[in-house]
Amino acid sequence: MRVFLNGELVEREQALVPVDDRGFLFGDGVYEVVRAVDGSLYEAERHWRRLARSLDGTEITPPAGLDAAALDALAQQLLDENGLAAGDALVYLQITRGAAPRTHHFPPATTRPTVFASAGPFSPPHALRARGASAITHPDLRWARCDLKTVNLLPNVLAKQHAVAAGADEAVLVRDGMVTEGSSTNVFAVIAGELRTHPASNHILPGVTRDVVIELAGQLGVPVRELPVPVEELREATELFLTSTTNDVMPVVRVDGRPVGSGEPGPVAGRLYAALAERMPARTAV
Amino acid sequence: MRVFLNGELVEREQALVPVDDRGFLFGDGVYEVVRAVDGSLYEAERHWRRLARSLDGTEITPPAGLDAAALDALAQQLLDENGLAAGDALVYLQITRGAAPRTHHFPPATTRPTVFASAGPFSPPHALRARGASAITHPDLRWARCDLKTVNLLPNVLAKQHAVAAGADEAVLVRDGMVTEGSSTNVFAVIAGELRTHPASNHILPGVTRDVVIELAGQLGVPVRELPVPVEELREATELFLTSTTNDVMPVVRVDGRPVGSGEPGPVAGRLYAALAERMPARTAV
Repeated sequence: MRVFLNGELVEREQALVPVDDRGFLFGDGVYEVVRAVDGSLYEAERHWRRLARSLDGTEITPPAGLDAAALDALAQQLLDENGLAAGDALVYLQITRGAAPRTHHFPPATTRPTVFASAGPFSPPHALRARGASAITHPDLRWARCDLKTVNLLPNVLAKQHAVAAGADEAVLVRDGMVTEGSSTNVFAVIAGELRTHPASNHILPGVTRDVVIELAGQLGVPVRELPVPVEELREATELFLTSTTNDVMPVVRVDGRPVGSGEPGPVAGRLYAALAERMPARTAV
Repeated sequence: MRVFLNGELVEREQALVPVDDRGFLFGDGVYEVVRAVDGSLYEAERHWRRLARSLDGTEITPPAGLDAAALDALAQQLLDENGLAAGDALVYLQITRGAAPRTHHFPPATTRPTVFASAGPFSPPHALRARGASAITHPDLRWARCDLKTVNLLPNVLAKQHAVAAGADEAVLVRDGMVTEGSSTNVFAVIAGELRTHPASNHILPGVTRDVVIELAGQLGVPVRELPVPVEELREATELFLTSTTNDVMPVVRVDGRPVGSGEPGPVAGRLYAALAERMPARTAV
């Protein structure tokens, strides 16, 4: 596979960054992951808007000219270069504050940010969606700016690993007794017929799929309330599901070993997934 | 300068890591900075003990054989290789979970951790110590495991930058109304004749210099209490100072533009710095 690094396309094995890159030394960078179907990007505009927000929040100045159109073109180029014009693919983009002698404060303004992007084939988790995922609850140990999509991801890594080690698929994070989101997903619950999810505050990432699902729920007449779910209310949920760029809508049928609702994927998740799939770029082949 | 990367000594410019290194993608690593004087490491044993604790807390398995003796030898080799056998120097060591295809959960157990180490000359900030540093107060936005010395340092980077942008030297972090520590230092205050500092909880890094200073205060008969300082009590402090491997004991004479105590470096900080300097490895020349 060929990847993009600071203006050049190189083989992935040759894509190297200096040890002085602030991504490596401080996790000082932001990223996005965008879905592509048959060479068409899905919701790219929302991803690039969120990227701009993350750059702004971390005070990283992106390279001049790296606007939404340039990002679209870069993603498209990576898809084409790597034979991903057909089928499902993911585009990864990361921008760090660049390489410079190590100081906690920002490097000189002349420091060139590092831009890395790659594209790879992707298999949507249809089998898991059919049988339903499992989750554990886990303390949300993250910082107070979870609304920025940065590569300071160690708490997410540890939570996800703890889920995997427990034989589960995701960690549902709990802060001050409230469900915030998953380690790499947003979390929705159906409680008393109402769809509930944590409001878009500093404690969750404003997921692109989350936003789309809220819009679709409105269109489908499913009542939605952006109000945190206390962890003990999870027992009353008839459905629980995760949303993310790679999961779309993923029903959760077990939490901490206990079944959610009937213990089967539920109808609200099913309808929302169907509506989401319909919005995806048209496929030339299935 | 020659640095160490995964078993080899290479020129710093040639020290490159794959974009797939989890340090770059997730900030998934830990580090230490150790002081050397005339080729002798200072408090290395405590640093390597803390490193082991950070590795354990992040569940990173270090390479076999990388024990305290091997780390001492590596640091010594870097000092020798780079002409740092005389004078002040810093040794930097970072270990990440290694390079592997990107997944939030841990990579396969066979993944080799990345080990990077470097040494460079260091100028102790004597002039700043003589006139006293300035600080701003800043919200502590960090995660709930500040006791681990990881490279998830973005909140520290932003806080330090905000201090520098305000013309100050350090950001004194405040969580729930209490001073925790600085963005790259521990914080001590003298209030009513007593030395106060945040207890070694999950909200601060257990600084090596912090520990030494607490011991020295005991020896000097200065009463010490590990009890958080409410931010409003900073106004009552007759002295405030920072401790770290690079700052030793650094008096703070202004906070948010207001003088601390007399507005001059104070006697408690002075005595503690003198006692600390006495413990440093003997110099062959000054």
